[in-house]
Amino acid sequence: MPKALLTGFDPFGGEPINPSYEAVSQLDRQTIDGVQIVAWKIPTVFRRSVDVLAHAIETVQPQVVICVGQAGGASDIRVERVALNLIDARIPDNEGNQPVDVPVVPDGPVAYWSTLPVKAIVHNLRAAGIPATVSYSAGTFVCNQLFYGLAHLLATQYPSIRGGFLHIPYLPEQAARHPGAPSMALETVVKALEIAVRTCFQQELEEPEAERRISEGREW
Amino acid sequence: MPKALLTGFDPFGGEPINPSYEAVSQLDRQTIDGVQIVAWKIPTVFRRSVDVLAHAIETVQPQVVICVGQAGGASDIRVERVALNLIDARIPDNEGNQPVDVPVVPDGPVAYWSTLPVKAIVHNLRAAGIPATVSYSAGTFVCNQLFYGLAHLLATQYPSIRGGFLHIPYLPEQAARHPGAPSMALETVVKALEIAVRTCFQQELEEPEAERRISEGREW
Amino acid sequence: MPKALLTGFDPFGGEPINPSYEAVSQLDRQTIDGVQIVAWKIPTVFRRSVDVLAHAIETVQPQVVICVGQAGGASDIRVERVALNLIDARIPDNEGNQPVDVPVVPDGPVAYWSTLPVKAIVHNLRAAGIPATVSYSAGTFVCNQLFYGLAHLLATQYPSIRGGFLHIPYLPEQAARHPGAPSMALETVVKALEIAVRTCFQQELEEPEAERRISEGREW
Amino acid sequence: MPKALLTGFDPFGGEPINPSYEAVSQLDRQTIDGVQIVAWKIPTVFRRSVDVLAHAIETVQPQVVICVGQAGGASDIRVERVALNLIDARIPDNEGNQPVDVPVVPDGPVAYWSTLPVKAIVHNLRAAGIPATVSYSAGTFVCNQLFYGLAHLLATQYPSIRGGFLHIPYLPEQAARHPGAPSMALETVVKALEIAVRTCFQQELEEPEAERRISEGREW
Repeated sequence: MPKALLTGFDPFGGEPINPSYEAVSQLDRQTIDGVQIVAWKIPTVFRRSVDVLAHAIETVQPQVVICVGQAGGASDIRVERVALNLIDARIPDNEGNQPVDVPVVPDGPVAYWSTLPVKAIVHNLRAAGIPATVSYSAGTFVCNQLFYGLAHLLATQYPSIRGGFLHIPYLPEQAARHPGAPSMALETVVKALEIAVRTCFQQELEEPEAERRISEGREW
Repeated sequence: MPKALLTGFDPFGGEPINPSYEAVSQLDRQTIDGVQIVAWKIPTVFRRSVDVLAHAIETVQPQVVICVGQAGGASDIRVERVALNLIDARIPDNEGNQPVDVPVVPDGPVAYWSTLPVKAIVHNLRAAGIPATVSYSAGTFVCNQLFYGLAHLLATQYPSIRGGFLHIPYLPEQAARHPGAPSMALETVVKALEIAVRTCFQQELEEPEAERRISEGREW
Repeated sequence: MPKALLTGFDPFGGEPINPSYEAVSQLDRQTIDGVQIVAWKIPTVFRRSVDVLAHAIETVQPQVVICVGQAGGASDIRVERVALNLIDARIPDNEGNQPVDVPVVPDGPVAYWSTLPVKAIVHNLRAAGIPATVSYSAGTFVCNQLFYGLAHLLATQYPSIRGGFLHIPYLPEQAARHPGAPSMALETVVKALEIAVRTCFQQELEEPEAERRISEGREW
Repeated sequence: MPKALLTGFDPFGGEPINPSYEAVSQLDRQTIDGVQIVAWKIPTVFRRSVDVLAHAIETVQPQVVICVGQAGGASDIRVERVALNLIDARIPDNEGNQPVDVPVVPDGPVAYWSTLPVKAIVHNLRAAGIPATVSYSAGTFVCNQLFYGLAHLLATQYPSIRGGFLHIPYLPEQAARHPGAPSMALETVVKALEIAVRTCFQQELEEPEAERRISEGREW
């Protein structure tokens, strides 16, 4: 049976929960359209996050890897398109590391594209009534470390596995402590992940992604 | 049995639905802690909105009236504190009226306070994990017309009825068509309205509202 | 010679300067189209702000009073339309007072309209290339205290004097310490104040303000 | 005498002016700390923008190239750190081209870093009282085409020239037609460009850039 590995992070930055792990853990051991979902918890720690991910991929042997992270202040599902080879931490990670202006992989390429069908995912999420946008920056904190680490791992060791990253908003219970911050219900996020998985496994049947025009907001 | 009248609007501004009526209609004929809920649909039309509300109040004879309206672009439940005697429409209402700089009630006072326990509602919503803020402007469109019309009606004809207004975000399915806009799940909004009703009927047992310090965001 | 009193505040909230006093002080003793400008510094202290304003009005005997305050986070000149009889301080004022949910004037009306030609000022600012909007909330901190105090004073003691309030953004040098915050150059703010003064004294010659349609942004 | 080439764009998207060319043209033929400034106008046209830039570099033979573009809606000077090999146009360029999901340079690398001292520029702008941030996305319109085209040209043909991209806000006169949009005075932008040029030529004397910690806002 084909498998999809979904990862979520430990809480960080003073939050009691991390919506990314809350969401992926709800899908653990579920089957979506014949695809087995395996959820994995990733520590919010720069280097160790990638080590744990590598171990999970080796263990699960999935066809698709979707890493998920919290984007406090975001309004919608941000399907990340590009991982940068740069870390610049504004706050320490959960083990006190705060690297400034260092690469994820010394001598690695400047950036990797997501190998998920990014625009098809955004298109299908919107069609299902779930707010989503393509994002061109996954930041420079642990989320980007994991995303770049994943992309490098797939490019160098697992070229047949597709992988990428989704950022998700706060849950309502988190936003209730951050006045003015937008949020998304856990049920909506879980439904979004199901659609993302389905899109990854159906994508080859569809029109080329590059022909989809999806307005992403900015003019510049 | 005590009654609470909850009103929601017709869709406007090109939207196929209005989350305010979607939410209140889910509570119609429900009983919350011994309070009978009656939902009523209000047309998004300047004068007629208040006429329909007056008819609903006369018919239902509620102890509490909570009018609800859509605030596209808002992130959270905005519990409105003040209704202004001013209409200044940016777009036409559903019958093509676009009044500019006219009072809701000629010779009415400049403004009315909500007579709902505004801060207690915000406090209880946050405690239940639902993002909410006190708002000091309900705008100058049909929502404010209805809010001021309600407040004037209660002040002049029904002094024992408490009433006010809540603005709610887009539903996710609406925000999916407005890239970047925040949203709130219908289930969360419905739960918020239940808490608002409960708070209105329990409020007399609690500490004076004025002693609650709730940060509302702006420094100025 | 006709006179306009322009007031600005002391710095507060940890800022080394307050752009409102920086701006009005540049116009002190200037003459604009035959109108003498007098600038006055107001303490960022709840009650005392209104006492100092009352003394300034008595001393200067102006035809027009424009109070100006800092709105950190605002993008443009916000010409305030309404003052509320409510104070709810998120931070202490410069003497440590932090009133919560108290009226500016016990038994005063809920709100007063600005008696400046609000829409004509916004219209003329935009025509001169200066970003501006009509605002329907001056907040609940010292700015609103001063605005309501001014409006009450004019309504009860000086009915022939026109008065109102303008909120202005951070200066660039302030925004440089608040990453992401918008700002406005001091020269632009000073030019805006000149236009506001001119508009107040020319307004009687023009079309009725109520006929101006100015889009203010929000749909609700 | 060392030279810096500063480029600005033609107006686009319905704007009568483009603040980027307004700003750079003010510095044309000026000397800043012994550096000769040459300003060049770039068409807002996908391919042709890079052709014109290549011609300008060949003609001027500068040591530093700073391309500048309008970011309508931005609050501050955004010093771009990375150019992506991807174009995805939301609106047509000035000759009607609207490429979707195409690379700037087929077979080019996914991304190039700016070779300007990005953090030192942000640091020096803030120290001079000008709001600025490091940006990790230059978008997917003509600005990014020019930035990537510049980076590719320098990497492949002019390895000794440093180059990068700055996004700037609307001018106030533009924001006056976009209610709510932030802006920056032309004088402030021109001063920012002078500081950017100075920083590029002084940078080698200073501490390594990687040691500067500059908070850029996002936690994720």
